[in-house]
Amino acid sequence: MQYLRNKFQEVRKQSTHICSPLKTEDYVVQPIIDVSPPKWHLGHTTWFFETFILAPNKVNYRVFDKTYGYVFNSYYETVGNRVLRTDRGNLTRPSVEDIFKYRRYVDEHLLEFLDKLDNCPQKLLNLIELGLQHEQQHQELLLYDIKYILGHNPLFPIYKQATKHIDISEINPQQFLEVNSGNYQIGNNSCEFHFDNEEGEHTIYLHDYAISDRLVSNGEYLEFMESGGYQSFQHWLSDGWAWVKENKKESPLYWHKIDGKWNYYTLNGLKELELNEPVAHISMYEADAYARWKGMRLPTEYEWEIACKKHQPGQLENSNFVEKEHLKPYYTLNNYQFYGDLWEWTNSAYLPYPYFKASSGAIGEYNGKFMINQMVLRGGSYATPKNHIRATYRNFFSPHLQWLFSGIRLAKHLT
Amino acid sequence: MQYLRNKFQEVRKQSTHICSPLKTEDYVVQPIIDVSPPKWHLGHTTWFFETFILAPNKVNYRVFDKTYGYVFNSYYETVGNRVLRTDRGNLTRPSVEDIFKYRRYVDEHLLEFLDKLDNCPQKLLNLIELGLQHEQQHQELLLYDIKYILGHNPLFPIYKQATKHIDISEINPQQFLEVNSGNYQIGNNSCEFHFDNEEGEHTIYLHDYAISDRLVSNGEYLEFMESGGYQSFQHWLSDGWAWVKENKKESPLYWHKIDGKWNYYTLNGLKELELNEPVAHISMYEADAYARWKGMRLPTEYEWEIACKKHQPGQLENSNFVEKEHLKPYYTLNNYQFYGDLWEWTNSAYLPYPYFKASSGAIGEYNGKFMINQMVLRGGSYATPKNHIRATYRNFFSPHLQWLFSGIRLAKHLT
Amino acid sequence: MQYLRNKFQEVRKQSTHICSPLKTEDYVVQPIIDVSPPKWHLGHTTWFFETFILAPNKVNYRVFDKTYGYVFNSYYETVGNRVLRTDRGNLTRPSVEDIFKYRRYVDEHLLEFLDKLDNCPQKLLNLIELGLQHEQQHQELLLYDIKYILGHNPLFPIYKQATKHIDISEINPQQFLEVNSGNYQIGNNSCEFHFDNEEGEHTIYLHDYAISDRLVSNGEYLEFMESGGYQSFQHWLSDGWAWVKENKKESPLYWHKIDGKWNYYTLNGLKELELNEPVAHISMYEADAYARWKGMRLPTEYEWEIACKKHQPGQLENSNFVEKEHLKPYYTLNNYQFYGDLWEWTNSAYLPYPYFKASSGAIGEYNGKFMINQMVLRGGSYATPKNHIRATYRNFFSPHLQWLFSGIRLAKHLT
Amino acid sequence: MQYLRNKFQEVRKQSTHICSPLKTEDYVVQPIIDVSPPKWHLGHTTWFFETFILAPNKVNYRVFDKTYGYVFNSYYETVGNRVLRTDRGNLTRPSVEDIFKYRRYVDEHLLEFLDKLDNCPQKLLNLIELGLQHEQQHQELLLYDIKYILGHNPLFPIYKQATKHIDISEINPQQFLEVNSGNYQIGNNSCEFHFDNEEGEHTIYLHDYAISDRLVSNGEYLEFMESGGYQSFQHWLSDGWAWVKENKKESPLYWHKIDGKWNYYTLNGLKELELNEPVAHISMYEADAYARWKGMRLPTEYEWEIACKKHQPGQLENSNFVEKEHLKPYYTLNNYQFYGDLWEWTNSAYLPYPYFKASSGAIGEYNGKFMINQMVLRGGSYATPKNHIRATYRNFFSPHLQWLFSGIRLAKHLT
Repeated sequence: MQYLRNKFQEVRKQSTHICSPLKTEDYVVQPIIDVSPPKWHLGHTTWFFETFILAPNKVNYRVFDKTYGYVFNSYYETVGNRVLRTDRGNLTRPSVEDIFKYRRYVDEHLLEFLDKLDNCPQKLLNLIELGLQHEQQHQELLLYDIKYILGHNPLFPIYKQATKHIDISEINPQQFLEVNSGNYQIGNNSCEFHFDNEEGEHTIYLHDYAISDRLVSNGEYLEFMESGGYQSFQHWLSDGWAWVKENKKESPLYWHKIDGKWNYYTLNGLKELELNEPVAHISMYEADAYARWKGMRLPTEYEWEIACKKHQPGQLENSNFVEKEHLKPYYTLNNYQFYGDLWEWTNSAYLPYPYFKASSGAIGEYNGKFMINQMVLRGGSYATPKNHIRATYRNFFSPHLQWLFSGIRLAKHLT
Repeated sequence: MQYLRNKFQEVRKQSTHICSPLKTEDYVVQPIIDVSPPKWHLGHTTWFFETFILAPNKVNYRVFDKTYGYVFNSYYETVGNRVLRTDRGNLTRPSVEDIFKYRRYVDEHLLEFLDKLDNCPQKLLNLIELGLQHEQQHQELLLYDIKYILGHNPLFPIYKQATKHIDISEINPQQFLEVNSGNYQIGNNSCEFHFDNEEGEHTIYLHDYAISDRLVSNGEYLEFMESGGYQSFQHWLSDGWAWVKENKKESPLYWHKIDGKWNYYTLNGLKELELNEPVAHISMYEADAYARWKGMRLPTEYEWEIACKKHQPGQLENSNFVEKEHLKPYYTLNNYQFYGDLWEWTNSAYLPYPYFKASSGAIGEYNGKFMINQMVLRGGSYATPKNHIRATYRNFFSPHLQWLFSGIRLAKHLT
Repeated sequence: MQYLRNKFQEVRKQSTHICSPLKTEDYVVQPIIDVSPPKWHLGHTTWFFETFILAPNKVNYRVFDKTYGYVFNSYYETVGNRVLRTDRGNLTRPSVEDIFKYRRYVDEHLLEFLDKLDNCPQKLLNLIELGLQHEQQHQELLLYDIKYILGHNPLFPIYKQATKHIDISEINPQQFLEVNSGNYQIGNNSCEFHFDNEEGEHTIYLHDYAISDRLVSNGEYLEFMESGGYQSFQHWLSDGWAWVKENKKESPLYWHKIDGKWNYYTLNGLKELELNEPVAHISMYEADAYARWKGMRLPTEYEWEIACKKHQPGQLENSNFVEKEHLKPYYTLNNYQFYGDLWEWTNSAYLPYPYFKASSGAIGEYNGKFMINQMVLRGGSYATPKNHIRATYRNFFSPHLQWLFSGIRLAKHLT
Repeated sequence: MQYLRNKFQEVRKQSTHICSPLKTEDYVVQPIIDVSPPKWHLGHTTWFFETFILAPNKVNYRVFDKTYGYVFNSYYETVGNRVLRTDRGNLTRPSVEDIFKYRRYVDEHLLEFLDKLDNCPQKLLNLIELGLQHEQQHQELLLYDIKYILGHNPLFPIYKQATKHIDISEINPQQFLEVNSGNYQIGNNSCEFHFDNEEGEHTIYLHDYAISDRLVSNGEYLEFMESGGYQSFQHWLSDGWAWVKENKKESPLYWHKIDGKWNYYTLNGLKELELNEPVAHISMYEADAYARWKGMRLPTEYEWEIACKKHQPGQLENSNFVEKEHLKPYYTLNNYQFYGDLWEWTNSAYLPYPYFKASSGAIGEYNGKFMINQMVLRGGSYATPKNHIRATYRNFFSPHLQWLFSGIRLAKHLT
């Protein structure tokens, strides 16, 4: 249990650490439906432990506050009513202070519960692990949402000052990793934690392809923009072009042209665009349009996974993907390595693997019911906890979203 | 100047006093477009003094923060860009603390400015007075908005506990004040402060009518509800009926049927419905439907004003209207007399008086441009500062709104 | 009865005459919610006679088709369910041919009914008269809607070619009719037909004012446009300015700038703008902004009515208003000379007169329930049947609408 | 050329034949965005031949009417401006008669063009073939749209009376075709016409699976409904459940419960539900929910294609899929026996095949730009022309749509 105890404390501490630069006001709002208020994240992840671990398993456990179930349930229909997602940003209570109390209360009870666990059934251990993985996912969302809240304030407040400067004055010339056609194994059968959506190693067939060793940079993306990329329907999927028109899109999210120069809002505040950084905060529509303009395409999630496994057989736990040397950490938010690394849009729809089976009960709602109308991203971002990511990990979002930490890796056919 | 100095300090203190029971979180949100975040009210009223008094008149005055103009302008097109009303609730910065600093900064400068004023031009004194009246209007809005924010939270937080109990176990039998047809004088020509929309005493002709001596009570309104009032189109204006259907309205705002009993959210928290209190938080559509069901009608704003002037020739400054004995203060928020008194919907559209002339410049936008698509309310509410209200005061809102402190006074023709 | 018989036949024929230039396709669509399909107008006016006259009064009358009640009820809640207004344009059946059959069927039955009527109760005669007045109102709406349907087609089809040319090369210099303050009589107590909303002659008090002898011309309105009228918030009511911005308004409806010249769509097709014609198809927001820019204002409906009665005591039946000499030639409905006279926006909200009482039953829904959120227009247009209009007639529409035949008459205070 | 000449005449005639039971009014409207007015289909398919064949290739060809390009372009950005899809239903002109003239004009010119073609370049022949295939696609859409227009009319008009009765009093017991895991070939390399989205035969790997020999029947689907299928979130994808709630869905499209019995609107009119017919007019959300409730799943498009090819190696041209014996009689487009065969939702997203390459120019917009946010359907429906369908054909629609002729085929893993 000591391992789990430590991990529990560490993960829980990290959530509040991410919020530590915030003012109370920043915890409250929900400027767009995709963003949740930071205090909601803190409460919701706590509610998850209370509802799925403590309430059903800990003897004589008293729920902290009965009304919290209604407030902090995200989407579990099995567990009763919930605040509509669109209303989260109007709830000023429970206060931030009360939510911190709630966290301490549940933490104490959970640690106490862990201490007394002997011969804990594996199913329960899995559920606690799931709660931690779940909280790690919300840690990443917290950063998306905090950036959105601060980055859309006319005062452009700084989240955190960078403490060291990374030299990115040079960028590696792009190289392509080639993979030959054949049958490959996709998915995860290991004993290590993984989500149900990765479960079930299985065969797929790939055709010859080549995949880039690095992400597209701001400078490269700027060429697309300056060549009229946002004005030419030819490069775009039909829905993407409608999205450009309707939202008058002309650049990635957070970019501002000021006195003729491109600036962008970062967690360090508003600064001039760094050309050698990977381009970030782009929708799948933009990623796809860029690739098309370049005469290439996005990889499928299978191509991505095989390239990743192939190239780094022994290093899956430590790094998300190949050849990130030039991206080495250039600023550090405590123990998070903000390498400038980004989730990478694939051209695969988020659909079940052949042997996918949702768990029974509320936990079964975790992944399966979202397998429609979304596209897969792979690779993790600088906001992804290191011990949360792996080569088989499947992230997924709607193709129009820009607020996540997303980037572009190119692929092409071998000829 | 001493009088103005004192009034300035008193009015400004009152705004922060109204907010004193709030938590920081409560200052931030905007659950519907009609509500503004409390911190916005505090900043906006301050911006008014800075923009219209200090910046143009005080020598060497330095604006507190240039970005605040963009954040705190409400609707003055003359004074530049502004945050869209729908976006106010997403601005976590400036923080509440910063806005309090802003208030102190402007207050100090304004007092300093007042101290040095000799032979102050009347026009400037008027503008300062307007700033204070403006702040008093926002004090009332603050209470509407705070009530909405807390009253729509699933935890139903208490704004302030009532400190004394008022006996309202009995209600006066309704009586009607009769007024004979003839020419009457409407509007305000006095030297005392009044808005441009009341300016210009002028003749109107009234036909015989009778007007109730008190507002409709919760108990009386309940009869309407229980007789199927919200299910019968016959009682409703066409737009009102559409509003009922579209919003599934079945009661005034803040009413909740719990275990078969009507409760309502008040600033003292959720409690059982008090039958003898005036019915509050009703739209003009509901007021009109009730009157029609009762075989009567709402008064026009002229009928209201003449009845008010007629009945209380010497008491206009102290009270809003006739016969409120039974409503005497049953709880007190500091020096505000919360008599349970309410703004009263009239059946008059908000339109200019014959001699109406808007001021020049930004101040001209104060009232005139809103003279369309709104209905007039008269009389003030328990949230209206006593020295802010008078018999000629014209309040105005869209007929579908319920979040204001509104009630019903009946009128009828003499037969 | 012969008088009624003749009038019935004449009015009914006029409706189909108005539609005679249409193709079958033109009868079907509803491009905006305010427009109804021409075939719906033809069916609805027929349904009115069937439902309110024949079904309850004619012995053994068999309803033509039971489903028509659902299709052709406009807003009478008393008479059962109805197609939502927004869905009228999707109903391809009943076909135009079937609706013409329906008209013939009801016409025959109604004439038969009239023939056998002896000692017809006045109430029933009134109802038949109301049916005819109702149909005349729809004749005017038919022209609004036909113009909208054809005028928004990219082919700009001609409704009807003008058969004679009117010389409007000169325009009278504007003169103002002055009226002195005092008590005046408003409304209608006559035995002639009039709507319940005009009923009840009663006293009002007017202040000195002056009112123009003619409408504002296209040329005069163009000056407003060219001086930046649509770009300057100062001239506009707040809701009007929002309407301009949201709808990107830059001119009256049907105006198109082609190769640097203003053209407009008329019922005679697209042609170059005639500067001396009265400006038409403007919203109340535009009328009000123009008047304000001109340093004047719109008249109230009372000012309009008194000026009208005052100036033309003996001619109320033949003409709508003073000094229309130069417009006379255009006012010939049968030749469809579509120049001319227009409804005139007033600055009065549509509200009940002091003695207003709605009829009982479904007919009571005719006018009263719309007395909110609309502004009054007076005077009639070139599309208004001559025997339908009078000095006390109150028309009413929402202030943002442009598709009606509306114009501007200026008023001002005497100084 | 004779073959092409004959096919051209036959295909063009079929479009007008489908419309022959319509009244002029039925050609005009667009009740929902997915539906296009029948007259628009007739014009658009003609415009396709004019724009892509005649205008660029036929010497001295004069375009029928220049404005038609604007009216009848569907989505080809390359070819200039176009009427917004939402506005198609408001265009009463060009009239139906004019569109028939347009068709005759283009037909004559195209036949003349074909007659003079010697050594016609293959690329041009392909384009003419594409025009015909395109028109066949619109023939199917025409039936969807006609059914929607008539089926949403409160009079429920009959499109065409069935001329013979089919006995479907019995239904075959369901059997499952088993397919073993392994590499298979997907896609189309043949010389026969096929769309670019099927092009490029390529390997995929399939796992063991079983697939039903017939579609789910109305009776079987009714069991799902009666077990509370539309009330239990457990069966639904998250977006599907939101769709059910928001649209208050309780049954497939066109079903009406009348006096306690299920009826449905068919092209033969409103009739009692036939339990043994395949359930039709269901969204992919409903198909997926049904399969989940049944403990099975939808097939992927690969599983579908391999099962199809495997089972009927020699019959691809004549039939869409396995074991349709009991459906055969209904599959006769000319008699309009509208029972039968349906497009089958798969659980595959519509994405490019490995060797997909869009054509250059406007034709490249035909398929590729829609490869996002849609799901694949396979198999064809009773409205699909026989010579238009094949085993590799990929149809695609958004998962919420019900107005197409869609059904459910179940699949499952072998265990």
